[in-house]
Amino acid sequence: MSKLQIRPARRDDIATILMLSIGGNAPGREIVDDPEAAQSDDYQRAFDRIEKDPNNLFFIAELKGEAVGCMQINLLLGIAGRGRLRAQLEGVHIRADHRGQGLGGEMMQWAIAFAKSKGAGMVQLTSSKNRPEAHRFYERLGFVRSHEGFKLSL
Amino acid sequence: MSKLQIRPARRDDIATILMLSIGGNAPGREIVDDPEAAQSDDYQRAFDRIEKDPNNLFFIAELKGEAVGCMQINLLLGIAGRGRLRAQLEGVHIRADHRGQGLGGEMMQWAIAFAKSKGAGMVQLTSSKNRPEAHRFYERLGFVRSHEGFKLSL
Repeated sequence: MSKLQIRPARRDDIATILMLSIGGNAPGREIVDDPEAAQSDDYQRAFDRIEKDPNNLFFIAELKGEAVGCMQINLLLGIAGRGRLRAQLEGVHIRADHRGQGLGGEMMQWAIAFAKSKGAGMVQLTSSKNRPEAHRFYERLGFVRSHEGFKLSL
Repeated sequence: MSKLQIRPARRDDIATILMLSIGGNAPGREIVDDPEAAQSDDYQRAFDRIEKDPNNLFFIAELKGEAVGCMQINLLLGIAGRGRLRAQLEGVHIRADHRGQGLGGEMMQWAIAFAKSKGAGMVQLTSSKNRPEAHRFYERLGFVRSHEGFKLSL
């Protein structure tokens, strides 16, 4: 049994989230050109907006008190299906030096249980077509690859 | 030039949204077994919750005062990319008897402009693998089919 602890992200996790998102694997190594980036107004404002949105939840996964993963769960309220709620996962990351230990699966199982506890009828996510190993991972968890994911950069 | 008018959905649009979501094409024809369904507490509560969520926006497209389409735009606030905002489209529907007239494209262009006006850096959506004609439609609009869409029913 792993000791993964999952808790809501705090403002002082911004640098950690950035590191995990870019894939850096050493806590002390900043992943953006500007070492002050995490303190910048852009990130602070982004955190403010997320904090005010009760349907946008950011989590940090810790192992022995050290942040090793993060994920964002958006609760999407719909009308169809008697007001079906979907839980959408974005930005699911595990620190590179902690992969292959089942932590990603554990984090996903936690996310699925969380979605159920909120009354969601579906969990959904998209994964880059370049990542077949991630696709097998999601399929092992019971996800069905039923849709094409389209993105338009603005 | 079409006369498509796009406006926020109102509570009395619930029956219309259900009809459009299921694909019924006659305004008078209810699409669910229970003709009172749109008045049911489930739908009313769903509308309440959506109304309270400033990042969950439901729109109705009207042609000459008649509802012919609907779509939901969720604004997903992130941390990475200096607080990148994504606009996600769900439940994009055009009434069956109004397809093939370019209204879907017009509605999508409106959604893209709306996303830009909100500062979004990306518009995203998923489309069932069973709908190749929809995929060509999104690709013509500039979307890139870069991801696999995974769903897990709970």
